[in-house]
Amino acid sequence: MAYEVASIPGDGIGPEVVDAIQPLLEDVSSAFGVELEMTRYEWGSERHLQEGAMMPDNGLDELAGYDAILLGAIGHPDVPDHVTLNNLLLPIRKGFDQAICKRPAILFDGVESPLEEYSGGDIDFVVYRENTEGEYADMGGQEHPGHNHEVAVQSAVFTRTGTERIVRAAFEAATERNGKLTSITKSNAQAHSMVFWDQIVEEIAAEYPEVTVERLLVDAASMDFIRRPEEFDVVVASNLFGDILTDIGAIITGSMGLAPSANINVSGEYPSMFEPVHGSAPDIAGDSVANPLATILSVAMMLDHLGEAEASDALWAAVEEQLADSDAPRTPDLSGSARTEDVVADLRTRI
Amino acid sequence: MAYEVASIPGDGIGPEVVDAIQPLLEDVSSAFGVELEMTRYEWGSERHLQEGAMMPDNGLDELAGYDAILLGAIGHPDVPDHVTLNNLLLPIRKGFDQAICKRPAILFDGVESPLEEYSGGDIDFVVYRENTEGEYADMGGQEHPGHNHEVAVQSAVFTRTGTERIVRAAFEAATERNGKLTSITKSNAQAHSMVFWDQIVEEIAAEYPEVTVERLLVDAASMDFIRRPEEFDVVVASNLFGDILTDIGAIITGSMGLAPSANINVSGEYPSMFEPVHGSAPDIAGDSVANPLATILSVAMMLDHLGEAEASDALWAAVEEQLADSDAPRTPDLSGSARTEDVVADLRTRI
Ligand SMILES: CC(C)[C@H](C(=O)O)[C@@H](O)C(=O)O
Ligand SMILES: CC(C)[C@H](C(=O)O)[C@@H](O)C(=O)O
Repeated sequence: MAYEVASIPGDGIGPEVVDAIQPLLEDVSSAFGVELEMTRYEWGSERHLQEGAMMPDNGLDELAGYDAILLGAIGHPDVPDHVTLNNLLLPIRKGFDQAICKRPAILFDGVESPLEEYSGGDIDFVVYRENTEGEYADMGGQEHPGHNHEVAVQSAVFTRTGTERIVRAAFEAATERNGKLTSITKSNAQAHSMVFWDQIVEEIAAEYPEVTVERLLVDAASMDFIRRPEEFDVVVASNLFGDILTDIGAIITGSMGLAPSANINVSGEYPSMFEPVHGSAPDIAGDSVANPLATILSVAMMLDHLGEAEASDALWAAVEEQLADSDAPRTPDLSGSARTEDVVADLRTRI
Repeated sequence: MAYEVASIPGDGIGPEVVDAIQPLLEDVSSAFGVELEMTRYEWGSERHLQEGAMMPDNGLDELAGYDAILLGAIGHPDVPDHVTLNNLLLPIRKGFDQAICKRPAILFDGVESPLEEYSGGDIDFVVYRENTEGEYADMGGQEHPGHNHEVAVQSAVFTRTGTERIVRAAFEAATERNGKLTSITKSNAQAHSMVFWDQIVEEIAAEYPEVTVERLLVDAASMDFIRRPEEFDVVVASNLFGDILTDIGAIITGSMGLAPSANINVSGEYPSMFEPVHGSAPDIAGDSVANPLATILSVAMMLDHLGEAEASDALWAAVEEQLADSDAPRTPDLSGSARTEDVVADLRTRI
């Protein structure tokens, strides 16, 4: 099978990582007959600095026909974050109705956690993050600029459709995993949105009597990811809470360099997008020391989404095997001194 | 000097801790001539269950004349969180315009962090959390309940007055500490509120050229509290971000049982409120094993606020000394087997 994939390497370490993993994708193609035909889009901050826009006006139309999108990383020291994100990443997530953001947090064998009590194999959960609305809604404004009575309002928007969709996806995942779902809220302080969220969780829970549901406030959850991460199975959270918790999930499992993510369009009408959780890391860009594993695991999630479970499993297994092998090359984020290419070259021997 | 303090022991472990520390307050009184005259208010969830209200209608009027308020803990398994909080804790914070919430995060000598690389003395920062508005504004609603097009909106409100006040307090604190301020935002995804926050930080930064200002996204900050907590000095954050970050701050410094907080009314028109960061812990309530140190340090913050620096310092020093002493009694949250009273009795010998 061949799939058309739009590749947006983006900024910083994005392009060098996307380039470096190409040979591995060819191996997957020969080994499993699954071809990812990459078409590259040079969109991002450099384009913004030169042409005044992160992507062309018809960018989404360009991408709409692809089977999937691979994103490297977005973010540039010379461009404000709200420009880079609101003109590329968020428009794709929202425009293509990628309502489900799936982010596994796994402490792999051979990887060290900053948490003293945890070692490889101890942590394995997945966060289902709502990905198109909630606290990221582009709603609000500023009034009386510069005056003493100035006020800024930012409105979070939760639709029944959007909330049911993410909650249902999380329940489905829980039935396929260990049957435990933790719903993250802040119902005590945000009664308008979060009590609604709780209602939807309760409604849908009735359809999944075999799933155990735990409700946890976001502040308590942030602690519990540190205090008892082994107890989580599937976690469902709003856009902002999911954002915060998945970053904690990434760091407790050893490195941002290992955390993949999938932005899923449920209806299949639009392409889904796969991207590492890490950013563009301008401080190490160009040095060829970026960890390619988060992007490689994101490709594995893409393959799985495309129905290519065998190829996906093989990539996961290769990464697991490499991390468990103390002689294998590691990039500096994992306390090694290998280069991006070394990690890829070693992985190729494991496919 | 004598001060009139309203004591609201509240729910769960609140009352037993507030009772247990009373003898220590008497020691402080004899040693430093600083008397905290406690008037007890039996407000909280039990009252709600019996009389239908957490506190009387004129509760705030009752409290208004005190020099300070000591709160034990609020939260009850039989009462929804949004009821307990919106009818006692949040009305006091908002009604008394306690705009500044100050929460130190200190890894004391002799205390173990869950973070492998950190030991006693390595972490010492303070979070200034905006405490009366932002994401906790009681603004929003639900439309079309039960229908497919149902929508819930929760609006965060940032006023210039409120934002300037917390940012200025944080800059002041930075000048008295190590001159470093980290401002927490999510400007890339919440442009309406957080770009306004950034503006105010920039304006006020101009008045404090000696303070180094770092801007950090809340998701990155949640990671960095785990990855490089030693680098923080003063952190300033919105109500929600401060809530999440102070819970992370508490857990990385060893125990929720050690984290105090101050809710400060800047104008002095109303009393300020002092409370441990931990909740009512219904699972251990009644067992006399709750750690009293967070409440004791909250009293120390109260004394400092009242201008009684000497008595405040003595309490801090006693707690530090006790924690550094490996033979001193410790409650189970610190892996000991002492009871609440034992910890207080030992502390009394150190005043
Ligand atoms: C870059 C930013 C807008 C983004 C987000 O908050 O969604 C990132 O932090 C992430 O988690 O993918
Ligand atoms: C109980 C809750 C409303 C409160 C808050 O979020 O402010 C608590 O978590 C805190 O941090 O004091």
